Amino acid sequence: MPFGDTATNPAHLRLLEEWLRGYRPEELFDEQGALVPQLGALAPAGARRMGANPHANGGQLLKPLRLPDFRDYAVSVPRPGHASAEATRVLGKFLRDVMKANGARRNFRVFGPDETASNRLGDLFEVTDRAWLAERLPEDEHLAPDGRVMEILSEHTCQGWLEGYLLTGRHGFFSCYEAFIHIVDSMFNQHAKWLKVTTKEIPWRQPIASLNYLLTSHVWRQDHNGFSHQDPGFIDHVVNKKADIIRVFLPPDANTLLYVADWCLRSRDFVNVIVAGKQAQAQWLDMDAAVKHCTAGIGIWEWASNDIGAQPDVVMACAGDVPTLETLAAVALLREHLPQIRVRVVNVVDLMTLQPREEHPHGLADRDFDALFTTDRPIIFAYHGYPWLIHRLTYRRTNHANLHVRGYKEEGTTTTPFDMTVLNDLDRYHLVGDVIDRVPKLGYLAAYVKQKLRDKLIEHRQHITRTGEDMPEVRDWQWPG
Amino acid sequence: MPFGDTATNPAHLRLLEEWLRGYRPEELFDEQGALVPQLGALAPAGARRMGANPHANGGQLLKPLRLPDFRDYAVSVPRPGHASAEATRVLGKFLRDVMKANGARRNFRVFGPDETASNRLGDLFEVTDRAWLAERLPEDEHLAPDGRVMEILSEHTCQGWLEGYLLTGRHGFFSCYEAFIHIVDSMFNQHAKWLKVTTKEIPWRQPIASLNYLLTSHVWRQDHNGFSHQDPGFIDHVVNKKADIIRVFLPPDANTLLYVADWCLRSRDFVNVIVAGKQAQAQWLDMDAAVKHCTAGIGIWEWASNDIGAQPDVVMACAGDVPTLETLAAVALLREHLPQIRVRVVNVVDLMTLQPREEHPHGLADRDFDALFTTDRPIIFAYHGYPWLIHRLTYRRTNHANLHVRGYKEEGTTTTPFDMTVLNDLDRYHLVGDVIDRVPKLGYLAAYVKQKLRDKLIEHRQHITRTGEDMPEVRDWQWPG
Repeated sequence: MPFGDTATNPAHLRLLEEWLRGYRPEELFDEQGALVPQLGALAPAGARRMGANPHANGGQLLKPLRLPDFRDYAVSVPRPGHASAEATRVLGKFLRDVMKANGARRNFRVFGPDETASNRLGDLFEVTDRAWLAERLPEDEHLAPDGRVMEILSEHTCQGWLEGYLLTGRHGFFSCYEAFIHIVDSMFNQHAKWLKVTTKEIPWRQPIASLNYLLTSHVWRQDHNGFSHQDPGFIDHVVNKKADIIRVFLPPDANTLLYVADWCLRSRDFVNVIVAGKQAQAQWLDMDAAVKHCTAGIGIWEWASNDIGAQPDVVMACAGDVPTLETLAAVALLREHLPQIRVRVVNVVDLMTLQPREEHPHGLADRDFDALFTTDRPIIFAYHGYPWLIHRLTYRRTNHANLHVRGYKEEGTTTTPFDMTVLNDLDRYHLVGDVIDRVPKLGYLAAYVKQKLRDKLIEHRQHITRTGEDMPEVRDWQWPG
Repeated sequence: MPFGDTATNPAHLRLLEEWLRGYRPEELFDEQGALVPQLGALAPAGARRMGANPHANGGQLLKPLRLPDFRDYAVSVPRPGHASAEATRVLGKFLRDVMKANGARRNFRVFGPDETASNRLGDLFEVTDRAWLAERLPEDEHLAPDGRVMEILSEHTCQGWLEGYLLTGRHGFFSCYEAFIHIVDSMFNQHAKWLKVTTKEIPWRQPIASLNYLLTSHVWRQDHNGFSHQDPGFIDHVVNKKADIIRVFLPPDANTLLYVADWCLRSRDFVNVIVAGKQAQAQWLDMDAAVKHCTAGIGIWEWASNDIGAQPDVVMACAGDVPTLETLAAVALLREHLPQIRVRVVNVVDLMTLQPREEHPHGLADRDFDALFTTDRPIIFAYHGYPWLIHRLTYRRTNHANLHVRGYKEEGTTTTPFDMTVLNDLDRYHLVGDVIDRVPKLGYLAAYVKQKLRDKLIEHRQHITRTGEDMPEVRDWQWPG
């Protein structure tokens, strides 16, 4: 701003005029103010214009990925909770075959800050390598100039590479430690704003592949890293952007993760955030159930509920793999100690279903939300991230006043998996306590159960201090169904 | 993790043992497993231990800043709304004298990405320069090796410098374009986590100066920059961290900004976020009123309310300079067109007063919140940032069901200041419409006023399209009191 006051300062206006006259406008424009034809002719025409270069409108070049059938990678789950898998390792097999199927087209890459193997996507290295152009040593593994896994310990660079790759008409997948994806908050902002403007306001822009984040090595399993590695707040950051372009998924197990990843790779013009753990954990849904559950994005888990044909006394809701595990363990404790309580279990995969439909295209209609969550029963909601987000998404819903959310509240250290949930009151014992506090009909009986829970938490503390591991009854717990 | 399975794989256990025996533990430890005395003696003792170096526990070195009386920098406000000032320019005079008063101690620096002058803190250059060690050219301004303003167009570097400066016992102030402070989200996380652990759990750590952010050139005034420069979400990010160490202030004018800045510079072990504009704007409070208002952090503006001695029909709440302006303009419109409506105006400086006291030490007691916001009247809340945050902070309050929040909803471009509020429904005309929609007693009368508002918004659109400037009645509007 060389002059800010030309409207009121004639001396500055004169200086501005002198300056601009230095460009000799009389040679550049005709008397009507139009550019003289000789100059206009200098600009390239038609497809040679910079903005008409298809690489600047990547959707013109975009070819759909060839995707193997994700159902072929399903983990066998004969009964809910009676199978174990590392969700991201299962996903790795699917991504490996996506890579293979599109090898000839060379339009798919996986990005990540030196964590592809740590995030258990290592099967990719059966069909490609890490892109590497410099010197190689004998001990180096999976480095090659034409490798299609892009690894560098700079989330910024990964994000920049991926944005460029998508904008020029290709497909990508970014896996990252959950806590450190905040490093690209500001870059995500600009991509989201770009998508909002180009997809909604510029009709000649062709759709591009979505920007897909897999956030793993998440807050609840930092057995070796600790407090610095615990931040589930990227979701909060993402949902501030325009609802039209934002999707957030919290698949509770491997088969649901497969469904979600396939969906994301087929989608266009979104930013998709998937949060899923890499550790071995109980599996809940076989592929058929996973497809149905994920297609809706939210639903009652009938096999875990005992309110069929009756009114529930409490709705136990969960979103995220660890919260789902703790919720089901709490339900099992309730069945054992307070069998008279009718419990409904609701699992959320697509977080945006919680928002009102006017706010997000995936939002449940109020009638459907009320049917799931009731209009008057207490809801105990175990959530993967900062608990306030669930309130923010649901404050307009009928039964919001009865909603009680547990989640990460910035308590953590290097400790056992179960202790992380205990430190944040998200563990099975606290969840049962939350139910007892909110279901009025229990009366005197409740005191005995609450004391048992208290004792269990004391046992837990003593056990982990002595052994460094969770109690066998926690570690080896299985859904009793 | 060279071996992950030593508990179950004896062959790996043996390899691990072989490896560790390579360090010859029998020479390092005695039979009880204690380090042999000769080795123990190698570590420095007492104050020579690395952790005992006072620079590693900066609070030991910390000297309070010498602060001039902020009241001396007050803008004269004879009547609310009948003075104009650029808030950050006023702050710049105060910071200049803070710099001067502590020049000999050399323990205060101002940080920012090349925006000290753009953010109107340029008076600092009367007493110091930008730190600059390289070559200087004749046209360079205010560069010197001993300059105490640290400028570099890298928010990361500014944040890193400032953290190091604070951790070693000095004081600092970071001014930044609001939208781009997200660049340091992840670094802020680690500093906030560090503060939480050291201040609450490690008693020998001495308090350090707070990390002070001034976010300016904010979302509502991007007359030249536009959509890419619009993101008020750093507050959302910050309030996910432990309440004990987080403070957020939205002073509505220059005198309140002076109070808040003085408070922040005196505070210890916090992260303070101040959001304040740099543009010339109406001033509301004289210094005496500003001190009272900011000490409480929230309060009724009696001079703008007309419900004294009666029940209010509506509470008009506001937080942030532009929302405060629009709220007062809406109140003036209501007085003119619907004088029978009783309006109470509540202004929020300290955002954390909205949270329940159990959640944040600055939170209002429920009784006090209910007294301000009533338990049953509609509340129209004009907020600086993403509107959902206000719901998140207040969802437990009695009158939450009647709370209606306007704020930034990701609509914007390079446009006039008033048009930014129109695009996001935060402008005076929308606010009056919100009141009309929610105050039942207006009945048939309301339709005429609503039509007037609609016509004004159409006039506005035509005017800015034609002239590039806001309508005179908006631009020159003054509080009629």
